[in-house]
Amino acid sequence: MVIASTAVNYCGLETVLHMTCCQQSRETITGHLHKAKQLGLKNILALRGDPLGDQWEEAEGGFNYAVDLVKHIRSEFGDYFDICVAGGDQELAHCNMCAQPGYPKGHPDAGSLEEDLRHLREKVSAGADFVISQLFFEADTFFHFLKACSEIGITCPILPGIFPIQGYHSLRQLVKLSKLEVPQKIKDVIEPIKDNDAAIRNYGVELAVSLCRELLASGLVPGLHFYTLNREVATTEVLKRLGMWNEDPRRPLPWAVSAHPKRREEDVRPIFWASRPKSYIYRTQEWDDFPNGRWGNSSSPAFGELRDYYLFYLKSKSPREELLKMWGEELASETSVFEVFAHYLSGEPNQQGHRVTCLPWNDEPLAAETSLLKEELLRVNRQGILTINSQPNINGKPSSDPIVGWGPSGGYVFQKAYLEFFTSRETVEALLQVLKKYDLRVNYHIVDVKGENITNAPELQPNAVTWGIFPGREIIQPTVVDPVSFMFWKDEAFALWMEQWGKLYEEGSPSRKVIQHIQDNYFLVNLVDNEFPLDNCLWQVVEDTFELLHGPVPSKREPAAP
Amino acid sequence: MVIASTAVNYCGLETVLHMTCCQQSRETITGHLHKAKQLGLKNILALRGDPLGDQWEEAEGGFNYAVDLVKHIRSEFGDYFDICVAGGDQELAHCNMCAQPGYPKGHPDAGSLEEDLRHLREKVSAGADFVISQLFFEADTFFHFLKACSEIGITCPILPGIFPIQGYHSLRQLVKLSKLEVPQKIKDVIEPIKDNDAAIRNYGVELAVSLCRELLASGLVPGLHFYTLNREVATTEVLKRLGMWNEDPRRPLPWAVSAHPKRREEDVRPIFWASRPKSYIYRTQEWDDFPNGRWGNSSSPAFGELRDYYLFYLKSKSPREELLKMWGEELASETSVFEVFAHYLSGEPNQQGHRVTCLPWNDEPLAAETSLLKEELLRVNRQGILTINSQPNINGKPSSDPIVGWGPSGGYVFQKAYLEFFTSRETVEALLQVLKKYDLRVNYHIVDVKGENITNAPELQPNAVTWGIFPGREIIQPTVVDPVSFMFWKDEAFALWMEQWGKLYEEGSPSRKVIQHIQDNYFLVNLVDNEFPLDNCLWQVVEDTFELLHGPVPSKREPAAP
Repeated sequence: MVIASTAVNYCGLETVLHMTCCQQSRETITGHLHKAKQLGLKNILALRGDPLGDQWEEAEGGFNYAVDLVKHIRSEFGDYFDICVAGGDQELAHCNMCAQPGYPKGHPDAGSLEEDLRHLREKVSAGADFVISQLFFEADTFFHFLKACSEIGITCPILPGIFPIQGYHSLRQLVKLSKLEVPQKIKDVIEPIKDNDAAIRNYGVELAVSLCRELLASGLVPGLHFYTLNREVATTEVLKRLGMWNEDPRRPLPWAVSAHPKRREEDVRPIFWASRPKSYIYRTQEWDDFPNGRWGNSSSPAFGELRDYYLFYLKSKSPREELLKMWGEELASETSVFEVFAHYLSGEPNQQGHRVTCLPWNDEPLAAETSLLKEELLRVNRQGILTINSQPNINGKPSSDPIVGWGPSGGYVFQKAYLEFFTSRETVEALLQVLKKYDLRVNYHIVDVKGENITNAPELQPNAVTWGIFPGREIIQPTVVDPVSFMFWKDEAFALWMEQWGKLYEEGSPSRKVIQHIQDNYFLVNLVDNEFPLDNCLWQVVEDTFELLHGPVPSKREPAAP
Repeated sequence: MVIASTAVNYCGLETVLHMTCCQQSRETITGHLHKAKQLGLKNILALRGDPLGDQWEEAEGGFNYAVDLVKHIRSEFGDYFDICVAGGDQELAHCNMCAQPGYPKGHPDAGSLEEDLRHLREKVSAGADFVISQLFFEADTFFHFLKACSEIGITCPILPGIFPIQGYHSLRQLVKLSKLEVPQKIKDVIEPIKDNDAAIRNYGVELAVSLCRELLASGLVPGLHFYTLNREVATTEVLKRLGMWNEDPRRPLPWAVSAHPKRREEDVRPIFWASRPKSYIYRTQEWDDFPNGRWGNSSSPAFGELRDYYLFYLKSKSPREELLKMWGEELASETSVFEVFAHYLSGEPNQQGHRVTCLPWNDEPLAAETSLLKEELLRVNRQGILTINSQPNINGKPSSDPIVGWGPSGGYVFQKAYLEFFTSRETVEALLQVLKKYDLRVNYHIVDVKGENITNAPELQPNAVTWGIFPGREIIQPTVVDPVSFMFWKDEAFALWMEQWGKLYEEGSPSRKVIQHIQDNYFLVNLVDNEFPLDNCLWQVVEDTFELLHGPVPSKREPAAP
């Protein structure tokens, strides 16, 4: 369920949750279904599942057949779920013994095809929306099955189950468990090449492509179901050859949209969680409505309380030793920390020869567009402006732009330059002096761990920093700098210092004290340059700040003194 | 109430509705209040009003004093209304006999200042939010009044009533009715110049400015109330001299915002009613919520049914003879109609020497930005593309631009080019041919009076055609081309042909038949060029259409053949 939830919520992919019912209590199953609904899963494949022992024992009052599960889902959850049942069943996908009706060739254990079909009809009558067939090797097998279903009165959509042969041994295992018949002509090809994995895989792909073409050409199938058995390479290859692998690089929005039904309309998020989208999704999962069109003042909102869960569960899974290699076995001073940030940005190995591939605020690789700012980011991080989020300004690039484009074609995308960083109180004081002369051109929010908050934003209104204009549509503005959300984000951003980094070191150690000092004393700053058509002024703001702190710096472009 | 409603709903001005209660039934007054609430009026000045006869007769169960009206408003409408009462009263503004307590100098009819104050305190206790004082001539008079109010326990804000003397006779009349004392030193100045209106007015302005300065300098007044007696010149002059006349030409949105409380958040409207905002406001007055941030698909909406009211009440009030002079005593053919449109656009007098200052679809003068398109509009109208709405494209002009700017300073405004017109079926057929080659660049909606509807808009989504980007704010997109609303607008737009124009002519007359033919057979077309950063292509679309209809047209720029 965690995998399905991640796919739906975070990757925006539709999923079908496989649920078995045998030897589970009614309460357990109802609990699973409630959880699935809460996570935004809409589709259930209702299966009987496998008995634990050799013998199938019917449980009193429990669920003995998939049909019981279908009835239960419909009676408890109405039309909320789309329910799919196996015609034949699904257990083969998990390499288990199967005992369900409806196999294209008749279930190996069942008395007759007719009995299988009556069971399948029962499941459909109980409320199933569609059927996935057991795997088969010849299109005619499936067509016969379709005809038989139709004759007995099964009218819902039936998806053919496709199994690209991926290896000799896996096929033998499958055949043994399912007691499927493999046609002689396939056996004849495979036996001679049984030790050549690549050859078998190629043959399997070829065979599946022909089968799919024949099925699709018939006009009788509403789609295809692939049994991947946890290996996606062959299926990907089949789809590519069928011309059905649609690798559209365009993003509908700058961030990955969620397929959770509650979030379907969502099209605005605060920029702060850009590198921690899972945390954002989890911290907002209790919302009833998601902002659409405009963030607004009122939708600023009950974020889930900051819990260890968000800090740990969602962090990169590198072990402590890995992290210490990246972030420093020992931190002598704040400057050591500056260097870690610089190495993350440069991608160069540190003095011990290790690359810094993540930071507590970035469990994802550096965004493509961030590389546009890399040089400037490096320079300022080395001087203690510890950047954790940024975007360049964009004044109307085509929505098809490979780096910054998003949304439907024929449109234009825009951004205001954004920079977010931790820095010392001393730097903040100089920064505030500098910001005076930029007046309303630059909006800022500056806050410390205790919540001391300095801003020039009018009435705590959100500032749209990414937007797009498209043919025949309203304006889309997917990211905002929202002052209210920023107060929730800062708790998370400050906590990550100690929770993910400081705690790597012994209590009382100098390294830990360095991190603790930063968490306690630094400020989190965000800056927006509202003049998106002009050159980004934020670098100048930072340079002016350094100059105010340290006196004029000789321009990099001036030749060194002789 | 109609004036107050127009000020609030259409001009976006706050108003204080003056209500009297004497000799009116409880039901009548409750009815007025419900109407006021429905119209969006929030502030009531509660007055007793004037008896019809010489003698004041107390009505049983009715309202005899302003305090009864205050109590009634609070008991029936809770906190909905802000209530103001007169300290002294307001009737002088209407040049009537007054009989209220609380005059700064003590009411002339009242026994004593103390009794006046007790009555005022009663009104405040009954629920009045603030007090407007009777007029006076010396600041000290008002300060004494304030002190007395404070001593008796009246703590709400008290606005001084300022009366700039505007003429000798009006002052004498006022003094006679109110029995106010005019200080001797003022009389001494006025008597010698009593026949010089200009001199008295200048003196009156001078006097009011000094008085206001003294009041404001005291820090004791929350604002000023002016008695204009329906003449605004002196008050305007006083405010200008005080530096309080704020003539900011900037518009908050491209259209006049409404001050109706329900419409405070409204910031999106369909472009169609741009020249008929009153009709739009009336046809949407029953909505509970107004679109804010995004028009959306779902807010498309229950427009009030098209009623004569919208067609007539809101039309320009020119008499039939005026309209015939502008729009033609006789219309020989459709071409005569084309010429009327052309004269409206050019501003040139027609053959009979009359200027066309309005059309049924435009009761307002031509918008400033339309003049940017004048030459092109003229050319196409002469050829039967009868334009009723248009805007040029704008690719990021400063929000302070004197012609197209709107919204807060420091921002940028954008538009997609828009053109809306009536034209014949023949032209529409050619147009559709031409539009094919523009594909998604141009969105179109084409509809006839019966509702035959041709469009390439995706899923009936609205298209934002005006938007603005501002410092520290979300995107604002005040006008959209909404396919659903367009169907409501077309009923109104087609009906105006006959209701306002065709019916000027005798039934069965050739002129009337020309208009009827147009109403029955023409199409209403709107076009949006989605490529706002490029040159507006809509003129080319129209030229291509003419060329397809009539063959190539020699360029205007080519010299005539010798």
